[in-house]
Amino acid sequence: MSFAANNPDQPRPLRVALAGIGVVGGGVIRLLEANRDLITRRAGRPVEIVALNARDRNKDRGIDLSAYNWVDDMGALAQSDDVDVIVEMIGGADGPALTLARQALGAGKALVTANKAMIAHHGLDLARIAEEKDTPLKYEAAVAGGIPVIKAIREGASANEIARVYGILNGTCNYILTLMEREGAGYDEALAAAQAEGYAEADPTFDVEGIDAAHKLSILASLCFGTKLDINAVSTSGIRNLIADDIREAEALGHRVRLIGMAERDAERGLYQRVQPCLVPADHPLAYVPGALNAVVAEGNFVGRLFFEGAGAGAGPTASAIVADIIDIARDEYGPAFAMPVEALDQAPIADAGARIGKHYVRLVVEDRIGVLAEIATTMRDAGVSIESFIQRGNGSNNGVVIVLVTHEGPADAIQNAAASLGSSDFSVAPPMVMPILAL
Amino acid sequence: MSFAANNPDQPRPLRVALAGIGVVGGGVIRLLEANRDLITRRAGRPVEIVALNARDRNKDRGIDLSAYNWVDDMGALAQSDDVDVIVEMIGGADGPALTLARQALGAGKALVTANKAMIAHHGLDLARIAEEKDTPLKYEAAVAGGIPVIKAIREGASANEIARVYGILNGTCNYILTLMEREGAGYDEALAAAQAEGYAEADPTFDVEGIDAAHKLSILASLCFGTKLDINAVSTSGIRNLIADDIREAEALGHRVRLIGMAERDAERGLYQRVQPCLVPADHPLAYVPGALNAVVAEGNFVGRLFFEGAGAGAGPTASAIVADIIDIARDEYGPAFAMPVEALDQAPIADAGARIGKHYVRLVVEDRIGVLAEIATTMRDAGVSIESFIQRGNGSNNGVVIVLVTHEGPADAIQNAAASLGSSDFSVAPPMVMPILAL
Repeated sequence: MSFAANNPDQPRPLRVALAGIGVVGGGVIRLLEANRDLITRRAGRPVEIVALNARDRNKDRGIDLSAYNWVDDMGALAQSDDVDVIVEMIGGADGPALTLARQALGAGKALVTANKAMIAHHGLDLARIAEEKDTPLKYEAAVAGGIPVIKAIREGASANEIARVYGILNGTCNYILTLMEREGAGYDEALAAAQAEGYAEADPTFDVEGIDAAHKLSILASLCFGTKLDINAVSTSGIRNLIADDIREAEALGHRVRLIGMAERDAERGLYQRVQPCLVPADHPLAYVPGALNAVVAEGNFVGRLFFEGAGAGAGPTASAIVADIIDIARDEYGPAFAMPVEALDQAPIADAGARIGKHYVRLVVEDRIGVLAEIATTMRDAGVSIESFIQRGNGSNNGVVIVLVTHEGPADAIQNAAASLGSSDFSVAPPMVMPILAL
Repeated sequence: MSFAANNPDQPRPLRVALAGIGVVGGGVIRLLEANRDLITRRAGRPVEIVALNARDRNKDRGIDLSAYNWVDDMGALAQSDDVDVIVEMIGGADGPALTLARQALGAGKALVTANKAMIAHHGLDLARIAEEKDTPLKYEAAVAGGIPVIKAIREGASANEIARVYGILNGTCNYILTLMEREGAGYDEALAAAQAEGYAEADPTFDVEGIDAAHKLSILASLCFGTKLDINAVSTSGIRNLIADDIREAEALGHRVRLIGMAERDAERGLYQRVQPCLVPADHPLAYVPGALNAVVAEGNFVGRLFFEGAGAGAGPTASAIVADIIDIARDEYGPAFAMPVEALDQAPIADAGARIGKHYVRLVVEDRIGVLAEIATTMRDAGVSIESFIQRGNGSNNGVVIVLVTHEGPADAIQNAAASLGSSDFSVAPPMVMPILAL
């Protein structure tokens, strides 16, 4: 800024405008202020905030913003010559965020965003505009917060054919699961604690139903497999029906319960994309990921298994990812948003998640009366589900008896249907839970 | 190649020459052949091997190289117009590898290398030539094999001030330590097993003395702290004096023994760089890194703790990193080798590793006779070392009694000196072992 102005030999600053100053926006401002000198060194030139824009300018953000230039019409600014990069932190798949993104890219400006919903729904369209205008579209913060996993997969693992990418993509769910694990808490109790501590929102649907993780998974899948991003191809189920016994029984089986997003290429069936609670072997690194952390595993045909862990959300980690994108732009080190031009991406056939073969954990809660076991066994047999083990503990919870089955390998939907049928029978006292037992 | 030749609209292939066709070179050729199509898509153009060079052309490498063009004088090729990238896989800090690197960069060609010794000793000089000629110098494979940790730190974490970077940087040592842990084996036995399985060389000095890890640590430190790489500033000790009891006692203390390379900035003392066996808390992800894997942790002031794990060596993972560098070059996505121009790097004061304050594990093996305990206690008191706990198990091994002390916080060298003094006394029957107990 003044530095550059006073030193005509210095390279031109990168002029950045921030749209949407919430928790993340505040983090970006704090980061650019706190690490100003090292960012100038690493970026090769100063990064200057030339404008801010937010719905409410006067909200107390715990940070002095009086020195910054506020603009009302960020779209107009994006189309002017006064800015190089628009950082979109408004949120929402559509609406003002998408409008601004289109305006910025359309005007040939760089766009940096943390908006996973917008990228998952409109990333290909935005990438097309970016290509046409030869301008960067970057979204490192959209997946796994501060972990540079977009870069690690887009560039670090770029030599590999990826067989499978999977991970813990939602910190809220992992926080709830870890609480259930450590405290023996039930789902409702753990959710309430997560809400009290700010790890879950008042309406937690987006997180606990797996929707947020699905957005992130669809982005990872596109990068790993060179396919057109397709959020509608992700099959999703959440953690709401978990009970304390599920965590305990998983542990007794040498596993831990994690909400896993997984994308896998099946040569015959196509691309399989699924978010669901799974049993993860206790010796797999994902089993040790605690609290609100995120972690991603990519399996390459030459590199083998890569594992990345870090903070998946929060002002600091998200700002770290956003500013890394800004530094890449300042360095002029960037390329196509999805690693190759949109037209070079494949349209992958959608593999039916229900057809996936695997061992499964099935938990029922049933009335403690004669004939129930026979009915369960018969239903499973009629559905063609082969049982490897059958566990009934002496003491029931939830006013019923907990029964856990471990199946042999079989198609997910047959097992799911059999469980649903048992769940709707008159002896069932709680929704059944079916989880794949991952072989990782 | 023929593809490009037949399609004049296709972009120009990136022409790559490979120098040194050993295990890694074979891996690179296999990778470029196996993943040819996806590399072309991701790189935006074909990557073509235009020449090979190795000491022995006729050696059986288990791969058909007859279709490739062999050259005797790679240096001359590097200076011709027939090549864009030289991949140096000859090895050795100096000699032919360094000569070729200088020739290639000096001729304005891109250089990709897996040679950690050469980068640690001559990286700055090579980076200066690369800057002068405006050509890429890339070395992702030099640190932690297939893990894209150079990229993750240089770019992914670039917005952060890094307080500390540390990790498991040598797969051979970790393999030996894991064997000792799992089998209760002694060091010699575990080393022999590692040698039999190809994880350790006949002369294991380079690995087990921590020299290889020191090379890698010095590179990470430069990237994390923006300092001039200085291999001579790394203080190094290896794992040779470990005995089976050390692993057991560490476990009893809730820790695991790992060879840790750590670089840390101390505002007063300067940059601390150390490779040594350490006690890592059992709940830290490094404690779970098994076998020949590598792992790196970087702690940033906004992102928090980032953790990366993967294969640290081997033909496939190393080739994965080398080809990722090649793809970055093909995409024209690269910049200064050490994240900023060499002249912008700081000259960090070297912090004395011995002055570092911390809790330590001290293990002695002593004769089982009267007065020894008193002498140990006196020596420690006279050295100003405060003891938190003192463990003597009933049964000695190695023809002696194993005594383990856990110290309070104190400077490393005072504790090391006291242990060395006890180790040279007449009642000592094995070299003592001192390890910091890391607070991570």
